[in-house]
Amino acid sequence: MNNKSDMSIDEKFMALALEQAKTAYSLGEVPVGAVIVKDGEVVGVGCNRRESEKNALMHAELAAIDDACKRLGGWRLWQCELYVTLEPCPMCAGAIINSRLKRLIYGAPDLKAGSVDSVVKMFELPYNHSPLVTSGVLKDECAEIMKRFFKEMRKRKA
Amino acid sequence: MNNKSDMSIDEKFMALALEQAKTAYSLGEVPVGAVIVKDGEVVGVGCNRRESEKNALMHAELAAIDDACKRLGGWRLWQCELYVTLEPCPMCAGAIINSRLKRLIYGAPDLKAGSVDSVVKMFELPYNHSPLVTSGVLKDECAEIMKRFFKEMRKRKA
Repeated sequence: MNNKSDMSIDEKFMALALEQAKTAYSLGEVPVGAVIVKDGEVVGVGCNRRESEKNALMHAELAAIDDACKRLGGWRLWQCELYVTLEPCPMCAGAIINSRLKRLIYGAPDLKAGSVDSVVKMFELPYNHSPLVTSGVLKDECAEIMKRFFKEMRKRKA
Repeated sequence: MNNKSDMSIDEKFMALALEQAKTAYSLGEVPVGAVIVKDGEVVGVGCNRRESEKNALMHAELAAIDDACKRLGGWRLWQCELYVTLEPCPMCAGAIINSRLKRLIYGAPDLKAGSVDSVVKMFELPYNHSPLVTSGVLKDECAEIMKRFFKEMRKRKA
């Protein structure tokens, strides 16, 4: 468990990840957003752009990792923390392992594809790296934007 | 099991993936290569460039998926087959799920990070897609280039 002061720092950065999710929403994308933080500073941002980029790799986390690797000039992000509004899928959980991220903080669970706690606990498998994990930060807000998006999509299709 | 004529087609495309692995080798990268094939034609290629691009995402499979999404103009690669010299890591296995690839063909197993048969059988987990898998195509050649690379690395460090 985090203490209160940690939680407020986590909430601050998760709010920035939520801003990224809102950008995705405005593009008509499933609203997932991510930011990467090093020493209290944002060094990477990303939002889901799968449809607009027509690319299966364009998840929020991969975009943020790509951004951070470019800004920091290296592939090892072991001093960095990744904030993302939704529990990462297997691709993104694998990218977190590959980039050696120190810590993952996510908002809402993803029961269908989440690979940290839901479908599989990937970080408990014997890979060569495993980040610290905090879940449920701004969970309600992170879940709410997803619900609103899918409700609107259904309304448009009806 | 594939029949003989299937195997020879698979060997032909795996040989192209091996050419990509050789490109990685020449760049001083862990020699892994991939190609994506649709209707008998190559629509994506990639090789590991993690060190030269200073980017944790630059695995052969992700580079090939990125290339194919761009060339085909869409994120669903469900008519495509991915040939890769090494068993995919969790990030790349997840990207295969996300891009809906029809079939994966890999050469050598990766006992430390392979997430198709070795560390975890990811395609047997209840995600929303699962490709057909063929393993062991040109296995000896795919394993040999890796062994040669790491032997040379150790020699340089000695």
